[in-house]
Amino acid sequence: MTTMNRQFLLNARPVGDIKQTDFKMIETAMPEPGADEVLVQVQYLAVEPAMRGWMENRADYVAPLEIGDLMRGWGAGKVIESNNARYPVGTIVSGSFGWQEYVVSDGKTIPLQAVPEGVETPASMGVLGITGMTAYFGMLHIGKPVAGDTVLVSGAAGATGSVAGQLARIAGARVVGMAGTKEKCDWLTEELGYDAAINYREEDVAAAVKQHCPDGINVYYDNVGGEILDIALARIATNARVVICGGISRYNLTGEIPGPKNYFNLVFRRARMEGFICGDYASQFGEAVEVLSGYLKSGELKHRETILDGFENTPEALKSLFSGSNMGKQLVRVAD
Amino acid sequence: MTTMNRQFLLNARPVGDIKQTDFKMIETAMPEPGADEVLVQVQYLAVEPAMRGWMENRADYVAPLEIGDLMRGWGAGKVIESNNARYPVGTIVSGSFGWQEYVVSDGKTIPLQAVPEGVETPASMGVLGITGMTAYFGMLHIGKPVAGDTVLVSGAAGATGSVAGQLARIAGARVVGMAGTKEKCDWLTEELGYDAAINYREEDVAAAVKQHCPDGINVYYDNVGGEILDIALARIATNARVVICGGISRYNLTGEIPGPKNYFNLVFRRARMEGFICGDYASQFGEAVEVLSGYLKSGELKHRETILDGFENTPEALKSLFSGSNMGKQLVRVAD
Repeated sequence: MTTMNRQFLLNARPVGDIKQTDFKMIETAMPEPGADEVLVQVQYLAVEPAMRGWMENRADYVAPLEIGDLMRGWGAGKVIESNNARYPVGTIVSGSFGWQEYVVSDGKTIPLQAVPEGVETPASMGVLGITGMTAYFGMLHIGKPVAGDTVLVSGAAGATGSVAGQLARIAGARVVGMAGTKEKCDWLTEELGYDAAINYREEDVAAAVKQHCPDGINVYYDNVGGEILDIALARIATNARVVICGGISRYNLTGEIPGPKNYFNLVFRRARMEGFICGDYASQFGEAVEVLSGYLKSGELKHRETILDGFENTPEALKSLFSGSNMGKQLVRVAD
Repeated sequence: MTTMNRQFLLNARPVGDIKQTDFKMIETAMPEPGADEVLVQVQYLAVEPAMRGWMENRADYVAPLEIGDLMRGWGAGKVIESNNARYPVGTIVSGSFGWQEYVVSDGKTIPLQAVPEGVETPASMGVLGITGMTAYFGMLHIGKPVAGDTVLVSGAAGATGSVAGQLARIAGARVVGMAGTKEKCDWLTEELGYDAAINYREEDVAAAVKQHCPDGINVYYDNVGGEILDIALARIATNARVVICGGISRYNLTGEIPGPKNYFNLVFRRARMEGFICGDYASQFGEAVEVLSGYLKSGELKHRETILDGFENTPEALKSLFSGSNMGKQLVRVAD
């Protein structure tokens, strides 16, 4: 067994596209579990677009990351040494492990969550992880779709969007998704139960939104910002809820980024545009995990993970989110 | 007595600034009240920035105005002939009279509202009229200020802003207003009880907002849009409510108008930006009139009217709203 622990540290704040050199991989000594502690071998790391904001130190809802800090991130792994009876050797746990191969915790220094029985670890990283929680609270607590609503989701084949849209469908809404490839669009309509999908790279998006949302949009769940947000704002229905979850089209831009010029339609449509931070709902994560696990087990909620092998490829996995090559949750397999 | 009724018709859809030639004044025969009808001599007409949207036919919450239509607008006047016992001669009534000197109604074709006793007609046109209703529902139902909140109001010396800010003050909030002249700013702090005022034409607005809202903005009541909306968005507090009431900086612009580039702060601040249409609350206007009349009579709510004499000057009064020359409600005195 290796005696070293590889880690990725933040090496530079990103400017424009994320670069490999924004991170620095180092080797440190394998951590040793002390009293009440366990040693976890990380099996999967999750990457999210929001990480770019953490790297930039613009996401002021989390503690700042300084240059030289261990890159922050969600992981799942197996307890391989244990001095804590709550987490015997072999237990699969997830937590905010950071970008490293091994981590030590007593279950409190880094809170450890058990992966629910009957749920595979990769699925738990997406649907029951940060992106699943984001979809759950953003769609159900901010968007609040009801039966008969038309719900439009951008980034619909991504980790958050794919769960958000399915939750709207389960709530009885007509769901229209936007994604960037035919394969993703087919996945939305053929597997996830979306009523329609729009390929934003191939189609006239405004015309397609008009066609698929003839009575307007009751809930728009936005993961992308930019021009697509404006197209959606132009077609919101009376009392619409525009959920600002993300703005991936913005994250890698520099300089002044235009705002949504159609925001004033919020007045004509008596509508609301609202942002939220998933972490604010932490006290309700248990409830969300229970509901989502139920949907996973019943098959009502489909999921997919795009998995890149090799710890050393973690920066590449993060970069891939911005080119849209992932379907569902993008993970890195660090160890089997 | 005259036998003619002057009217302003919509003559052209405005492009850029409103022009005199966007209207056409005509003389028609004095209307005669039939069975159950009364003849009202209009004493005051109210002008509002929203009228520009009606002229453009972009404000799709009201029936479109066509070229040649009587210009729509709120008025107040005296019953001078009556065939209806509910409205004896001498009664002061208000209603959607349009831009004309005389109007006939049975109280239903054009609903007639009595001006409450103890309230002067000009005050009723502002505080108890469309702008007062807009301030009441926008601030109390959308903005929902509570004691200790910091509330920022743009267009604070206007008809809506001046009432909105005072309602926030009455709710126990710290109120900061923005206006375009020293005279207006003095009025806000010395008479209306605002805690601070910012002269947006003279001051560094971003620095002044930071100074006067050191803990962020809990409610921003926006009448102007544009750069000031962005400055406010940059300083919203957690769970802020951004009430989009108007966007006067936008109304006379042509071409693509930029949107609020800081909208994404809604995410970081878990905040909401929401529009509304006053008319949606029509069933609750009675309650609002009662509350606001009470504040007027107790002196808790101050008001001012800027009055231009002469029916023929009504287009000029509307234009003046966009140069910001009015304090409080801009009215036209059509007759004594």
